[in-house]
Amino acid sequence: MTKEMSVAVTDGLVAKLGIEMEEVTAQRVSAVMPVAGNTQPDGFLHGGATCSLIETLASIGAAVVAGWPEKVVMGQAQSTSFLSTATSGSVRGVATPIRTGRTTHLWNVDVTDAETGKIVASGRVTMAVRERRS
Amino acid sequence: MTKEMSVAVTDGLVAKLGIEMEEVTAQRVSAVMPVAGNTQPDGFLHGGATCSLIETLASIGAAVVAGWPEKVVMGQAQSTSFLSTATSGSVRGVATPIRTGRTTHLWNVDVTDAETGKIVASGRVTMAVRERRS
Amino acid sequence: MTKEMSVAVTDGLVAKLGIEMEEVTAQRVSAVMPVAGNTQPDGFLHGGATCSLIETLASIGAAVVAGWPEKVVMGQAQSTSFLSTATSGSVRGVATPIRTGRTTHLWNVDVTDAETGKIVASGRVTMAVRERRS
Amino acid sequence: MTKEMSVAVTDGLVAKLGIEMEEVTAQRVSAVMPVAGNTQPDGFLHGGATCSLIETLASIGAAVVAGWPEKVVMGQAQSTSFLSTATSGSVRGVATPIRTGRTTHLWNVDVTDAETGKIVASGRVTMAVRERRS
Repeated sequence: MTKEMSVAVTDGLVAKLGIEMEEVTAQRVSAVMPVAGNTQPDGFLHGGATCSLIETLASIGAAVVAGWPEKVVMGQAQSTSFLSTATSGSVRGVATPIRTGRTTHLWNVDVTDAETGKIVASGRVTMAVRERRS
Repeated sequence: MTKEMSVAVTDGLVAKLGIEMEEVTAQRVSAVMPVAGNTQPDGFLHGGATCSLIETLASIGAAVVAGWPEKVVMGQAQSTSFLSTATSGSVRGVATPIRTGRTTHLWNVDVTDAETGKIVASGRVTMAVRERRS
Repeated sequence: MTKEMSVAVTDGLVAKLGIEMEEVTAQRVSAVMPVAGNTQPDGFLHGGATCSLIETLASIGAAVVAGWPEKVVMGQAQSTSFLSTATSGSVRGVATPIRTGRTTHLWNVDVTDAETGKIVASGRVTMAVRERRS
Repeated sequence: MTKEMSVAVTDGLVAKLGIEMEEVTAQRVSAVMPVAGNTQPDGFLHGGATCSLIETLASIGAAVVAGWPEKVVMGQAQSTSFLSTATSGSVRGVATPIRTGRTTHLWNVDVTDAETGKIVASGRVTMAVRERRS
């Protein structure tokens, strides 16, 4: 991750959710996110927070592979299965590319309990790659 | 929406995103969410914020239909297409039930630009309905 | 549906599944498909047959809107929920456009029991529109 | 795969598509399917055939793990990305479990060109496991 990208992602929704990047390469992007503050009324991790972590990691992976900021990457679709719940601690998301074409990418993102490693969710994100309009 | 539910949803992720409920019935749940503060590095509405709005509305709809808090509703899957971008103002999400079975619901949620009405995203959420363990 | 398209779709997988087109316009594409012969080992309509009906209808709709055969339309993704089962008779699929952009479409396809009208499945198909290479 | 299951899957849609099972274990289910006869009007492998292969493999995997025929497994949802096209030869699908719970499974199925190994599609199938009603 370039310094420019590093600064960019520490703003907006990512900061609000407390997502902290761990590893950023073209083959693997990982981050952790706390459960506290990202819950729904019954105290479980909000599925939307999980989707946000997934979208963030796939986007950063796509940005690295496509060459941001010259290229812009936009989420086109996300399809995620919620497999277990989390009520405390933090979760870890790991994004890996399934296919990185010139105009479209498909990334897989698995989310696990950061302490136990138990799978919490698994999602797929389709990213569109576009030229940046100056 | 009962007062109990109303209080419950104004905590956690929902509050953080600035989601404000508009209408809550068994047939239609709507809310608005600001774009500002929920963006990704290029200034567009973060897809994860959109997913969070979608998950929230489907969950509240399922809670109303199933009879929360006696029943607990949990997201099982979300599949969302991002159709256009938003960079300012706010977006409106409207959830409607496709099928509400005893143990599983499927809800559709369309997200539009709150000012222009242009479609921003369309998602499907599968919700599991469970008895609350005392 | 042009005569050319009409002939084209009566070949390959569509013929094998017994899909019979009913209505083809830019706003609505419908067809019926028999359950018999399209089942899985327990005698239920095979989910793959349902997906095939959904993919077919969305593709024909996209072809009509995009202007096939000058343009080629290719399925990019399908996301379908199976909501009830069918063991006899036939099912009807109805495709309607959610968004038809220049290079990408999103179509919704609902599948119902052709006799009772009960919903059997609901799916979303993302179609890519490309120029035909001569 | 038990002999009973082996006989069962050689009927209905599976036979029509020419799907031939290769390996069936609780950890991996694979099969090949010819492109010829399973195409859409432009001569490409029909996305519905791809979905059918994916649904079949996930279902057989779920049936093996859950203990068919005492248990019945039903597809609840499929979400598939079509990543490249195939116009001849055959494709291979390989299903692997992501999570196999008591009442719900999530399976991943990758489809590749059987000759070149190039990825054609990648899908997720959610399976519901139920007791068989006598």
